Amino acid sequence: MAESMKGLKRSHRCTEVTREDIGSEVTLMGWVQKRRNLGSLIFVDLRDRSGLMQIVFDENDIGTEGFEKAGKLRSEFVIAVTGRVEKRSGAVNENLKTGEMEIRALGLRILSESETPPFPIEEGIQTKDELRLKYRYLDLRRPNLQRNLMLRSKVATAVRKFLDGEGFLEIETPMLIKSTPEGARDYLVPSRVHPGSFYALPQSPQLFKQLLMCSGYDRYFQLAKCFRDEDLRADRQPEFTQIDMELSFVDIDDVIDVNERLLAHIFKEAIGVDVPLPIPRMTWLEAMDRYGSDKPDTRFGMELKDVSHVVENCGFGVFTGALKGGGSVRGINAKGQGSMPRKKIDSLVEFAKGYGAKGLAYMAINEDGSCKSSFAKFMTEEELKALTAAMEGEPGDLLLFAADKNKVVWDVLGSLRLEIAKNLGLLHKNEYKFLWVTEFPLLEWSEDQNRFVAMHHPFTMPMEEDLDKIDTDPGAVRAKAYDIVLNGTEIGGGSVRIFQNDVQAKMFEVLGFTKEQAEDRFGFLLNAFKYGVPPHAGLAYGLDRLIMLMAEEDSIREVIAFPKVKDASCLMTEAPGLVDQDQLDELGLQIKAEEEA
Amino acid sequence: MAESMKGLKRSHRCTEVTREDIGSEVTLMGWVQKRRNLGSLIFVDLRDRSGLMQIVFDENDIGTEGFEKAGKLRSEFVIAVTGRVEKRSGAVNENLKTGEMEIRALGLRILSESETPPFPIEEGIQTKDELRLKYRYLDLRRPNLQRNLMLRSKVATAVRKFLDGEGFLEIETPMLIKSTPEGARDYLVPSRVHPGSFYALPQSPQLFKQLLMCSGYDRYFQLAKCFRDEDLRADRQPEFTQIDMELSFVDIDDVIDVNERLLAHIFKEAIGVDVPLPIPRMTWLEAMDRYGSDKPDTRFGMELKDVSHVVENCGFGVFTGALKGGGSVRGINAKGQGSMPRKKIDSLVEFAKGYGAKGLAYMAINEDGSCKSSFAKFMTEEELKALTAAMEGEPGDLLLFAADKNKVVWDVLGSLRLEIAKNLGLLHKNEYKFLWVTEFPLLEWSEDQNRFVAMHHPFTMPMEEDLDKIDTDPGAVRAKAYDIVLNGTEIGGGSVRIFQNDVQAKMFEVLGFTKEQAEDRFGFLLNAFKYGVPPHAGLAYGLDRLIMLMAEEDSIREVIAFPKVKDASCLMTEAPGLVDQDQLDELGLQIKAEEEA
Repeated sequence: MAESMKGLKRSHRCTEVTREDIGSEVTLMGWVQKRRNLGSLIFVDLRDRSGLMQIVFDENDIGTEGFEKAGKLRSEFVIAVTGRVEKRSGAVNENLKTGEMEIRALGLRILSESETPPFPIEEGIQTKDELRLKYRYLDLRRPNLQRNLMLRSKVATAVRKFLDGEGFLEIETPMLIKSTPEGARDYLVPSRVHPGSFYALPQSPQLFKQLLMCSGYDRYFQLAKCFRDEDLRADRQPEFTQIDMELSFVDIDDVIDVNERLLAHIFKEAIGVDVPLPIPRMTWLEAMDRYGSDKPDTRFGMELKDVSHVVENCGFGVFTGALKGGGSVRGINAKGQGSMPRKKIDSLVEFAKGYGAKGLAYMAINEDGSCKSSFAKFMTEEELKALTAAMEGEPGDLLLFAADKNKVVWDVLGSLRLEIAKNLGLLHKNEYKFLWVTEFPLLEWSEDQNRFVAMHHPFTMPMEEDLDKIDTDPGAVRAKAYDIVLNGTEIGGGSVRIFQNDVQAKMFEVLGFTKEQAEDRFGFLLNAFKYGVPPHAGLAYGLDRLIMLMAEEDSIREVIAFPKVKDASCLMTEAPGLVDQDQLDELGLQIKAEEEA
Repeated sequence: MAESMKGLKRSHRCTEVTREDIGSEVTLMGWVQKRRNLGSLIFVDLRDRSGLMQIVFDENDIGTEGFEKAGKLRSEFVIAVTGRVEKRSGAVNENLKTGEMEIRALGLRILSESETPPFPIEEGIQTKDELRLKYRYLDLRRPNLQRNLMLRSKVATAVRKFLDGEGFLEIETPMLIKSTPEGARDYLVPSRVHPGSFYALPQSPQLFKQLLMCSGYDRYFQLAKCFRDEDLRADRQPEFTQIDMELSFVDIDDVIDVNERLLAHIFKEAIGVDVPLPIPRMTWLEAMDRYGSDKPDTRFGMELKDVSHVVENCGFGVFTGALKGGGSVRGINAKGQGSMPRKKIDSLVEFAKGYGAKGLAYMAINEDGSCKSSFAKFMTEEELKALTAAMEGEPGDLLLFAADKNKVVWDVLGSLRLEIAKNLGLLHKNEYKFLWVTEFPLLEWSEDQNRFVAMHHPFTMPMEEDLDKIDTDPGAVRAKAYDIVLNGTEIGGGSVRIFQNDVQAKMFEVLGFTKEQAEDRFGFLLNAFKYGVPPHAGLAYGLDRLIMLMAEEDSIREVIAFPKVKDASCLMTEAPGLVDQDQLDELGLQIKAEEEA
């Protein structure tokens, strides 16, 4: 039984009905959230995107036929109700926007019936992820996902409005592009017209946006779909969306300025949060030194302290050994955690090992000033005192130390700091701490490839002050690169680009590209650079992660309408799937037999 | 020589400098459009996205070194100029927004030099398409392409602003989806995690937007990237952009209402054109009868007239034969073209044959009332008179007739009508005539497949009045489908969707799908339909074509930043290209040897 809505027109969404409408007739359409019979009345909570409205069916109002129809209503039936808005007869429902009103039904049509859904359409219900994703169209009816997707739409609108006002042009760049075998894996798209040839789906519009600057478009943006064929983690999807931008005739400060105002605008517009400007800035080195991370969570302290100089002559071989190996000894002070049970400390040690630590030295300062420590026996009283002082240790504190190469120490203590904060409940999702991290190293050494690789990408401009070191000490050259960090998550990053042919050529040389390789991969960009290039810089945000943080969710799947799971498949549509042999023939492809693959 | 802009900040774009700035100092950055030396002065036209500004270099102002530098400037050098705004010393240039001003240069930096470009960066230059596309980054510097892409950005912004105001949510649907082997060819994307399986790139977000309606999002829109692996025509690209929308709890009139206001909004905002509302509507049958086309160009008349009843008993066998075969005889009146030379008429006959006509009967009415005709000898004086009268033929007119099956007659005369109008210069690009075409046939017979296929798609709702004919006379069932036509181009189309399981099942049956096939292709949609579906309808515009018409261009390539050519390749990046064997191995694919392919 599916009645048509012929002759009916929806007058309001559920919560668009206001006190002013009391006494007048409205027509609402939506889903039955629940029905209950109470004495001679039938109550239905009607749901639409805006929220809930209570409908009262009284045989005296709607007649016998209508009343009987109302008796058949079940959850998730789609109905159209015409009725009179009244002040609620029963108790006002404070939890409901429309809690002081109800609709006395005068007419009812059942537009669509529903089987019993596999899980209730309610917030906060524990349902297995697999089931939620298989029935994503039902999962998407839940208020939390509705809120998230509406937030996402609001943010996209706010971004566009702001950037349009700042003179940015929205320009679409192609999705079927040339494969460039650098960095993450491309998704490939076989060509039918040119069998054996492939397009790639873009990992980002990087080259195209730089070309648009060469072409004089001055300020570009796009909410761009990007693709990366990597193994998925909680916060990765094979396809994701970037707020992508590029600006001509600017330097770092210009990019930071417009982006700070952009962030303040969208946080205010979309979730009513004030972002104090300017956003603090920190160099990469300071971020590593103080937080052991290039994306510090600054919602709490517990900063790293370098105690190398304090322990350099102590009797604890683990410490002095690390220093002799060119490393450092650093610690964090978990304030007030001195009485942490041994078992918990042990689990922190295990956690640290997971990040490459050989061990974790600890010192719990008792309330009486004495201490329990894994290494006290190797140190003199003075040495312990100096170490405690250096760590600003007080009775009741727990000091944790790592000794190794800098990279390991940073990584271990940076992660440990977050783990402890998480355990202590210090990470408040509704608190938003932004930070710019600047002056990243231009290059990092790849043990795998036994060469330097670009930390951001090969078009990142070195800092002028460091240009002379590019041949002699490439690892020490800093880049005009910047990341924007929110609550310990990198939500965006970018750089000033190289716009000089000679610097770009040098960069490719340092990265170990032959002229031919550079030409083959980026030839059209290098050619474009022959015809007058403006200085330019850009930035891209991961929209999914940004929305995730704004929605106070833990996974980007909660802010994507139809996400994929870890094996990059869609549980609802069962993509990817098999295709006809004809299609493969047209593409000139064949699937390898299992034993060959 | 690439100087940095360190310490400099652009103060204005070229044409942002106004009369109020006269006397003050500005810093402009951009490209050298041209340089000329005049006496002791050097003049440079500086170009940026906003337009041109004249810079004057005088050795007395800028000093010897700066003056010498200015002497080295060549076209497409990128420079930064600081100078004083002055009233123009020479004649005011009326063609230039900034034609009454000039900048007396006080400082000059050359930010980037340029080789001589392969073609001049000017409007209206005849350059081969291949060269333009190879150097697209230079082509994009031309004022016409800059205008087009800025228009495109403006339209996108206007669309979003309007739809946001109407309660539409912008929701992103996936790009890596399941392949559905119906209609045009999908682009496939091999899966690495599941070797032998493939994703498809979407031809449209159709199923997802319908699911979003099932999920209660009520009003959805997206500027969606779509893909179709078809052989390209002038107005097709392998990837294209749709303004895609879907609405719940609506019928045709609601969709038409919001879209008429949308069109009026964007035409006013982006190009200052008033669209008179309501837009006229015409049924498909009327459109075919009057214009021989389901996308009539209503900028001019020359309508088709059915003269079957007039000629049914005449002596001209071509006419009566067509009628006996169940066809019709129809004509158009090319007013005032009676003196068209025989050679030109012959070329129209050839043109008509290209559209399937066996021939074309014509009658030129001389100024004295006599006539030249290809068929007069087969008719009586009375018959000719009656025919002339039926065609409202007057001295000086040219009447053209086709006789065949309706489909051929419509096609031939519809095309001929356009061809003549084009030759006569009746198609003014700056005149915008909109038209809704409604009541399309639900199905059309496919000779290839020997079955009915959906004219729009399998989810289109039949008209209630025709539902009873779906088994007995499927070809006569009209659909709740509508196209929006602008100047003879279909710029958008859509339909009310089937939301009842039983109607959908019937539709699949009529289309010849087995239950298993329907389940395999659209199973998740059919499942979703079990849980309460709102009545819903939607529409999608081809953004590229819309912008093309607004920009008064003939090809969508002129409104796409980086288009592809007919063989779906990109001349600039040389995509598609070869990939490494490793990549194919990971995908479990191999390229067939030439002889097998």
